[in-house]
Amino acid sequence: MSFDRMIEKIVEMQNPTVAGLDPKLAYIPPYILEEAVAEHGKTLEGAAAALVTYNKGLIDALCDIVPAVKPQAAYYEMYGWQGVRALAETIAYAQEKGMFVITDGKRNDIGATMEAYATAHLGTTDVLGEAVDAFGADALTVNGYLGTDGIKPLLGVCGEKDKGIFVLVKTSNPSSGELQDQKLESGKTVYEAMGAFCETWGEAVMGKYGYSGVGAVVGATYPAQLGEMREKAPHTFFLVPGYGAQGGGADDVVPAFDKNGLGAIINSSRGIMCAWQKEKCDEHDYAQAARREAIRMRDAFRARIGEIRLGE
Amino acid sequence: MSFDRMIEKIVEMQNPTVAGLDPKLAYIPPYILEEAVAEHGKTLEGAAAALVTYNKGLIDALCDIVPAVKPQAAYYEMYGWQGVRALAETIAYAQEKGMFVITDGKRNDIGATMEAYATAHLGTTDVLGEAVDAFGADALTVNGYLGTDGIKPLLGVCGEKDKGIFVLVKTSNPSSGELQDQKLESGKTVYEAMGAFCETWGEAVMGKYGYSGVGAVVGATYPAQLGEMREKAPHTFFLVPGYGAQGGGADDVVPAFDKNGLGAIINSSRGIMCAWQKEKCDEHDYAQAARREAIRMRDAFRARIGEIRLGE
Repeated sequence: MSFDRMIEKIVEMQNPTVAGLDPKLAYIPPYILEEAVAEHGKTLEGAAAALVTYNKGLIDALCDIVPAVKPQAAYYEMYGWQGVRALAETIAYAQEKGMFVITDGKRNDIGATMEAYATAHLGTTDVLGEAVDAFGADALTVNGYLGTDGIKPLLGVCGEKDKGIFVLVKTSNPSSGELQDQKLESGKTVYEAMGAFCETWGEAVMGKYGYSGVGAVVGATYPAQLGEMREKAPHTFFLVPGYGAQGGGADDVVPAFDKNGLGAIINSSRGIMCAWQKEKCDEHDYAQAARREAIRMRDAFRARIGEIRLGE
Repeated sequence: MSFDRMIEKIVEMQNPTVAGLDPKLAYIPPYILEEAVAEHGKTLEGAAAALVTYNKGLIDALCDIVPAVKPQAAYYEMYGWQGVRALAETIAYAQEKGMFVITDGKRNDIGATMEAYATAHLGTTDVLGEAVDAFGADALTVNGYLGTDGIKPLLGVCGEKDKGIFVLVKTSNPSSGELQDQKLESGKTVYEAMGAFCETWGEAVMGKYGYSGVGAVVGATYPAQLGEMREKAPHTFFLVPGYGAQGGGADDVVPAFDKNGLGAIINSSRGIMCAWQKEKCDEHDYAQAARREAIRMRDAFRARIGEIRLGE
């Protein structure tokens, strides 16, 4: 279990970003929606078909310049099991195109149940002796509120597989501090304590480049905490949401990187998905608009962090 | 948004318990597995078909004596989108038989993404003007680590619907204390702080019987905390895992109830689902074995808490 494969892709593309695939119907070009409705009606089936077409277009346009995609499970579950099938198809297609896939599910539970989540999203399901990948993503976001019992099963299920998890540490939303910023008796804040857990959990699954397979989610909207956590959790790779639509800028995110330009992958969802709406370009050009925005985003980081090199 | 409908069912059946539906293939009688494999092969489709048949048998045998079921999402996701379809079918069938359905998904996110989860599991999805229920459960478990931004969207999406959420407060697992028992500067533990949030969030969605639509998960394995939280969070209904297989006994759970015998619904998953294996009865008798165990569990609580009455 590690992020080595993701790190190698980041270095290969000199691009520390991930494209969020959170496909609300409102983001999808009308011609795609119309085709899907013509075939399936205004049904969950129809919505799911539109999601898949839209995502495949984005993946085709991004796969040679962006190392990873991050589908957000909520936007697929909203369209029922048909939407969840669209999630599975999206994951498979992105991997076929060489992308690293992070399922953003923020899953959490304990023992056998957490094993089931790990098996579902990262592992291989045993169907009476037949091994089948249920979703087969490369990484999963998880919530550590339940403690070690909620994380250990992931390390076990992933075992030798080159897969990873990102634990919520300091989230990007305005109210994240209600619990996460509170000070514990130890003098640490809750998010610092969670970051320290990540370092501990990661010891068992260290990769080749100085980072373990246990990463952390730390929001772009809290630059001071990003820098602080980069120092305090030196073996923990960060997934950074909150860039763009939520208000985080490229300068805000710089503290998340180490001296090699590694240590963080920055997510943009709406910025990339809805670039065609912002550019007011032709709807058929939506994927190329996404590519243009992804290039702008990549170049903003290149200008700030320079060449990204493999550490250690 | 409230738990009124669940509370009325508990009183009607004089039974404060919920049957967990966490269907591992190992729990399912061989004759059901063989039928499913004969039709679909050793595939995710086959596994999902077995899940649905097994669950329907359990629901038929329990629906007149147990007020609620709690399918655990992980065990369905493990079998891919086909398993998630089995979850949707299970929810619909249990509701058809009059049961209150709590989807145990421990979902968590912020803003529009949490709205998407709320819509998926409790609300109604808008497909280009057509209103469709994606999963349509009656309640959902959620994780409050992200603060108010992660909870408010649920209250909004559920609105006037008689649905509820259970927020993780003090979980039943051995390592739950690593974070949850830590003391904050305020002198409260993390789980007490989370319980206090539940009371605050619930103020906007109070039901008729003294409890709000924002409940809490508090484990049977920590009886002292159960009693403490019952006092400190008087308007928060508890979902109590950890009874049975995890070690919590009927006496341990008594502190979770108020003077009317309300305030908590106790979950048993393996105890009920695997009763046929424990009894070593004929596999075709699995559902009746589950019923016998559910009756034993109900009667254990009846003997301890007496008649359950509507409060306020």
